[in-house]
Amino acid sequence: MPADDRVPARSRADAAAKAGRLGRRGFLAAGAGVAAAALSGRAAQATTDNKYGPPHIPDWTKTLGPGVGDKPYGAPSPHEKQIIRRTVDWLTATKESSVSFTPIAEQLGIITPSGLHFERHHAGIADIDPKAHRLVVHGMVEREMIFTMDDIRRFPSASVVRFIECPANGGMEWRGAQLERCQYVRGMVSCSEWTGVPLRTLLRETGVKAGAKWMLAEGADAAAMTRSVPIQKALDDAMLCYGQNGEAIRPEQGYPLRLLLPGWEGNMSVKWLRRLEFGDQPWHTREETSKYTDLMPDGRSRQFTWFMEANSVVTFPSPERPLDGKGFYEMTGFAWSGLGRVRRVDVSIDGGRNWSPARLHDPIYAKALTRWSLPFRWNGEPLLVMSRAQDDTGYVQPSIAELRKVRGVNSIYHNNSMLTWHVKAGGEVENVQLK
Amino acid sequence: MPADDRVPARSRADAAAKAGRLGRRGFLAAGAGVAAAALSGRAAQATTDNKYGPPHIPDWTKTLGPGVGDKPYGAPSPHEKQIIRRTVDWLTATKESSVSFTPIAEQLGIITPSGLHFERHHAGIADIDPKAHRLVVHGMVEREMIFTMDDIRRFPSASVVRFIECPANGGMEWRGAQLERCQYVRGMVSCSEWTGVPLRTLLRETGVKAGAKWMLAEGADAAAMTRSVPIQKALDDAMLCYGQNGEAIRPEQGYPLRLLLPGWEGNMSVKWLRRLEFGDQPWHTREETSKYTDLMPDGRSRQFTWFMEANSVVTFPSPERPLDGKGFYEMTGFAWSGLGRVRRVDVSIDGGRNWSPARLHDPIYAKALTRWSLPFRWNGEPLLVMSRAQDDTGYVQPSIAELRKVRGVNSIYHNNSMLTWHVKAGGEVENVQLK
Repeated sequence: MPADDRVPARSRADAAAKAGRLGRRGFLAAGAGVAAAALSGRAAQATTDNKYGPPHIPDWTKTLGPGVGDKPYGAPSPHEKQIIRRTVDWLTATKESSVSFTPIAEQLGIITPSGLHFERHHAGIADIDPKAHRLVVHGMVEREMIFTMDDIRRFPSASVVRFIECPANGGMEWRGAQLERCQYVRGMVSCSEWTGVPLRTLLRETGVKAGAKWMLAEGADAAAMTRSVPIQKALDDAMLCYGQNGEAIRPEQGYPLRLLLPGWEGNMSVKWLRRLEFGDQPWHTREETSKYTDLMPDGRSRQFTWFMEANSVVTFPSPERPLDGKGFYEMTGFAWSGLGRVRRVDVSIDGGRNWSPARLHDPIYAKALTRWSLPFRWNGEPLLVMSRAQDDTGYVQPSIAELRKVRGVNSIYHNNSMLTWHVKAGGEVENVQLK
Repeated sequence: MPADDRVPARSRADAAAKAGRLGRRGFLAAGAGVAAAALSGRAAQATTDNKYGPPHIPDWTKTLGPGVGDKPYGAPSPHEKQIIRRTVDWLTATKESSVSFTPIAEQLGIITPSGLHFERHHAGIADIDPKAHRLVVHGMVEREMIFTMDDIRRFPSASVVRFIECPANGGMEWRGAQLERCQYVRGMVSCSEWTGVPLRTLLRETGVKAGAKWMLAEGADAAAMTRSVPIQKALDDAMLCYGQNGEAIRPEQGYPLRLLLPGWEGNMSVKWLRRLEFGDQPWHTREETSKYTDLMPDGRSRQFTWFMEANSVVTFPSPERPLDGKGFYEMTGFAWSGLGRVRRVDVSIDGGRNWSPARLHDPIYAKALTRWSLPFRWNGEPLLVMSRAQDDTGYVQPSIAELRKVRGVNSIYHNNSMLTWHVKAGGEVENVQLK
């Protein structure tokens, strides 16, 4: 640092003032006189709450910080400790078969940090030694085979940005529950850069017999989670993933190996994958009979409702991120579809009477979170904010009333209806449900 | 779990064998009889080292794992603890002014995990309270202004995937040092999804006077790191970033605010950004006079060598990731250019005599790490493996001999020459330098 930095701040400010010019150091030291608000209409506030002055040299400029080597693997700033996955105690009987929610209101960009990816376990997080882990492929294949992780990593690899969403995302709203926090209402979706081997590449080694129509995927956790997958999906965009966001897949996401079925119910992207069996009919496992089916008004259940249909959320404003006075804001959020690319997002601030198209941000990947935004100026009056996604199949995200007309109120899964945020006069935001 | 899972594994295997059919459980329990290698040529090995058998039910399938809530912010598997940033003790006098290297050989996809992003600090990591942090914009602007972090986050935002590279990446090779580990030789480049405000958006609030030609950017760390930036770059793709890979920028990367100058020397993307001053000439700060200049053979120094020119690295095979016997492999690595998109990558396995074009993986972003790969079959003979990047300006990555012809051996920075990996007969990989 130059020697003059050791002169007390006040003296330097005085010296700068006498010189008739606000120099580099003098400017910072004198400060208050030139403080200005960032956005029009905020200058008055700035002079009263003094948040633009008086200036000072903060501690972090006066002392050396920690050097390299202290954190071979880094962590977020302690000032960000409120940005975490959250759980709801009363939601499940045990925490081993439960969920945690991504703080989606605070997520930036489209990639969910791996440490914040939502969780859904059926028997807790399996702690797997990758050297001892094996993937077995058997049944209606030409060659039954066992693969080590080294074998799998040796295949040509690919990386794709894709969301994973639990079909229970928003499920508590079916009967009218209104959980606070955007995190609880839409936080069972996350988006990662996944790396692995296209399943069809590996299946060239084993071959698949002509009569094979279905694949069973089984996890190595204590739930031995199993789902039946139609062969078309297995040979389309299914992947055997060992990587997530640049490194090994996280334990909560299935370390060391997860099946990825892009755009389909998250539970079908079987974690801790240990077995793929091929057959000519589905297995009707517990997770596709007593669970993950949709109870219809006539008492029958829809089974094999795999697709996560177009959905969206307004992350700002939201219960976690209220408005701070009248003026300019950029409204923003996510949209996604398990059937393709997001083509359009419309936004309403009057409960769905009028709609404005939002701007979609690049990149727009198929089956990935897509960022949208819309500038607006708030006059301080209450709002009913909604977003509505449309994907490139033409499908338009429904209202909860439209969904209930077909599905009744007995479902747990596949509630992709529009949410409504009630922005109050003070700027606070509440989750409400329109009739 | 079904009740029959509680039958001892051996009994079930025997029962399955007697039934003349290898069923679901029986198959896993009996196992060895149907074990197979994943890739041709490895079956023989499998039967001798027994890595495909005998099978067993591992502990992680027999016990509940930890449930949700234990880790509100997750971490990699303990089995991945060797994938960390590394430092070199003798490289710098203090660890506060030093570097750590990204384990780039092990990176998957194109996004570097934030916890593994390389570091270069000049006075340690500033621990900044975002509520107290301010950005001052002054000098040749229409309106001198001070911004809080809330002010900055209120502007319309954008996200881009871009690399940041220290110009000293590979610098130790100028005089012929051959550090082992790909991590030390090319690990001062990382790639993130950065989120923030385009600087030109914020400058619409302050205005910039007609005569302003340069911008000074200053950090709030104890080094008060300062660099002069031409106004063209400030108004082109410069960004004020508060987000990295979906969350707040990490402390080591400038929390809560970093200037991003895509494609330019990493030190110019000033971390812990507190001040932007506009003027009509550069400031010739310490970091652009005694440091970050390039000493030429005639004793003069090149100054303001901002661009990070096209570069590439073979991450597999590499010193950290040797070959494991003859047979099929997918060679892979990264290429990048600070001047645009990677257009082509060529690979040689005979020290540069013959070249084959690699496949570039989507997405190919400008000024971002680009993944490439090339399948090959190894016959067990020694190789000299090299990669050569070309960007969409037509620029081709040079050899170290070509660079030295122009620049001599006195430089520290901007060595983007091709590396050579010597793959030995046993599969081990050594960093060598061709004459």
